[in-house]
Amino acid sequence: MIEAHLLDQIPLFSGTTPKDLERVAWLTLEVECEKGNFLFREGDKADYLYILLSGLVQLTARGPEGQQTVIEILYPGDSFILAAVITHKRFLMSAEVVKKARVLKIPADELIELIRHGGDFGLNMMSTLSAQFRTMVRQVKNQRLRTTAQRVAAFLLDLAYDQGRGENRITLPHSKKLLAALLGMSQEGLSRTFTALKEQGVEIDHNQVHIESIIKLRRFCGFSNKLDATDRINPKD
Amino acid sequence: MIEAHLLDQIPLFSGTTPKDLERVAWLTLEVECEKGNFLFREGDKADYLYILLSGLVQLTARGPEGQQTVIEILYPGDSFILAAVITHKRFLMSAEVVKKARVLKIPADELIELIRHGGDFGLNMMSTLSAQFRTMVRQVKNQRLRTTAQRVAAFLLDLAYDQGRGENRITLPHSKKLLAALLGMSQEGLSRTFTALKEQGVEIDHNQVHIESIIKLRRFCGFSNKLDATDRINPKD
Repeated sequence: MIEAHLLDQIPLFSGTTPKDLERVAWLTLEVECEKGNFLFREGDKADYLYILLSGLVQLTARGPEGQQTVIEILYPGDSFILAAVITHKRFLMSAEVVKKARVLKIPADELIELIRHGGDFGLNMMSTLSAQFRTMVRQVKNQRLRTTAQRVAAFLLDLAYDQGRGENRITLPHSKKLLAALLGMSQEGLSRTFTALKEQGVEIDHNQVHIESIIKLRRFCGFSNKLDATDRINPKD
Repeated sequence: MIEAHLLDQIPLFSGTTPKDLERVAWLTLEVECEKGNFLFREGDKADYLYILLSGLVQLTARGPEGQQTVIEILYPGDSFILAAVITHKRFLMSAEVVKKARVLKIPADELIELIRHGGDFGLNMMSTLSAQFRTMVRQVKNQRLRTTAQRVAAFLLDLAYDQGRGENRITLPHSKKLLAALLGMSQEGLSRTFTALKEQGVEIDHNQVHIESIIKLRRFCGFSNKLDATDRINPKD
């Protein structure tokens, strides 16, 4: 078992009673996984909720010809994948370790019991799941309504909004390879898009990006903070 | 106010205590909306949860050039959009009435209070939200990993799985116009795709579709019942 105070630091469990936390801690497993390992695969039965403590994990899916796409990248503190766990369904995505990861595994039945108890826990779960739903809606909108260049521009503006340092200079959080996969394009496609975005005042040097005018770039891709900025735990508006 | 027994028939409220139902009924509004009206628009603050009693509603979004896409079609019994309501955020999609609709509006604060109570209500909400999340994940996967023809084929196989009458003959549930919008393509694009799908043994006559071989069509688009079939209230596996 793990220590209850470890759970206490995870947003999902904030406001959970010490007694409930103790019980969850008893049933929770802690695992370490090396880069390239899979925590679970698309199609597996969802018996555990996963919480990333350290490292990096990507959620991926495979197409009819075996091609792979990255749907989301998970950071420490993130839980995945609530929707499958709550409904006892199969995972629609695989979870692959990108950077050596420490992970908590919480049994599905235990979570469902905690929701029944009511109070903050159920609400925390709903908020987390809601944010995940909204991330997917934004992805669908992006894929349907934006060109490749507009999609990359919107991604940069979301980062600028999040990093918020004068907003014009941002640091790419991932390798170009991972970034391309996350945006649903090839690495060559991403490079071509960065070249095309020079016209919109976007300069890139290694992992540093400079945006000449946030307003101009917003207009180019129709970005709105209200609709396009990722739901974050401490939103800025 | 509306009658509590009306709420009782909605899956979201199954297992809710009569006392809680009475309280929700007191605060719930019932509205009628004509075709073409909007219940709310992308960007509006989410103060109410909507439940469709009769008619048809589409969730749409607009792109940078003002172009519109249909993200989902809602049927009687469906609730929308939980994720925005629970987190007090803005709607990421607009809700437009496609066929004269009767709708319940439930105040967000009241729902959050009910979740705090625990029991079945919070769990029902989580299940509904989970199914909605999974629908969006499938859409992202479809857009990223399938060609247009494979996407239409997967849509038909999901319908066949749902309608389940010998599986080879299905009825399109919507006009071709609505169908094209839902699949993220133009009406001409959809017609061209139906023509191309003849090679895969798909024959279409008005709203009747005949699939020569389910197995062949599955292979063509990599369809799996476990991963691709929409989560339904009474799943078949």
